[in-house]
This record gives sequence, structure tokens and C-alpha cells, in this order.
Amino acid sequence: MIEPQRTPATSVLKVSAHSNPNSVAGALAGVLRERASAELQAIGAGATNQAVKAIAIARSYLSASAIDLVCVPEFTDVEIEGNVRTAIRLLVERRLLPVVPTPPPAVL
Amino acid sequence: MIEPQRTPATSVLKVSAHSNPNSVAGALAGVLRERASAELQAIGAGATNQAVKAIAIARSYLSASAIDLVCVPEFTDVEIEGNVRTAIRLLVERRLLPVVPTPPPAVL
Repeated sequence: MIEPQRTPATSVLKVSAHSNPNSVAGALAGVLRERASAELQAIGAGATNQAVKAIAIARSYLSASAIDLVCVPEFTDVEIEGNVRTAIRLLVERRLLPVVPTPPPAVL
Repeated sequence: MIEPQRTPATSVLKVSAHSNPNSVAGALAGVLRERASAELQAIGAGATNQAVKAIAIARSYLSASAIDLVCVPEFTDVEIEGNVRTAIRLLVERRLLPVVPTPPPAVL
């Protein structure tokens, strides 16, 4: 379902139509706590939908760490059992959230 | 298929599973030549898939103008004929590409 392929530059998570978006989100958030970017790869509408949902969920997982996510979609060709298929690659990058200063305690 | 709803802040394009990604990409690129952000709204896997493909295509349309796109997915509730449905909202923002300087002409 989710096959992490770690490379020095980024981390690729392959998402299928049967992937659990919460599980993918957890894996994605874990990668993005350590690295600046990760990559989701999806083939087909169902898989792409699960990948997008996973990114939306991962945003909520990371908001407590003041990290937001943006994604950059692109087409890519992948070879599966000798056949070339068009996949969607979602490059996911961190974006720091502005830190809201804590107001000083009220003077009574 | 695509219903632009213009507001002062952003522009919402509603995408369905039957939307043509090239058409959505053209509309999206048009909005993002004028504004800093746009919004795609999709309900269901097929619609989300078309929306993501449209963003990937719009990136190629805008690359000649040195504009790249990033998107931020989130869940949102929309009411359709009295029923609340969960939609995916993709906030699409411009990101300027670095300008590669043209090399000076070779001196012969």
C-alpha cells in the first residue's frame, strides 16, 4: 500500500486507491518532520484522491509544530511490469507558519 | 462543469469528474496571471483527480511567464441540495520561478 523509497534528496511514498489516507498522512508527517520535502506517487483517480486527502490530513498533524505543507503536482511516467503508465507525482514541501506571539499576561 | 465564482479575495473554480483538465487548466492559468491565488473545489475522487491534473497542466501553461504554482489542499463542507458533502478545496498560489539570465553573445 505504502512503499517508502528513501533517497538522499527526498522520500517517495507510493499511494494506491486502497491506501488509508490517515496512514499515509502519518508517514508523510513523519518524513516532513525530518526533511524539507517528500514525494507522493499515485496512479489513477482513486490513488490521487487518497494522496490529496493524506496531504490535507498531514497539514493538521503538523500544524502543532508550526509547519504547513504545500504541494506541487506533475505528471510522470512509471514502468510497471513492462508497461509505461502515467502517474501523478505530488512534491510536498514544508512551509513554516508564522508564529503568533503569546500575549503578555493581563495586569490585574 | 466549471463555474467561476469571483470574489475580491480569490476565485473559485468548481471541478467535476467530467471536467476537461485542459479547460480547467486554461481557466486557472488565466486567473493566476491576474491574481495571486485561486481555488479549485472538487467533490469525489474523479473530481479531485481532474483538479490535480489541471494544476499540473496549468504549471506548464504558466512556465513561459516564469510563474510556478503550489497548492494547499484542505477539507471543506459544502451544502448541495440540502445535504452536506465533504469537498476538497485546493488553494492554488503563484510562486515566481528564478529567472535564468541569458548568457551574453559569444565573441567570435
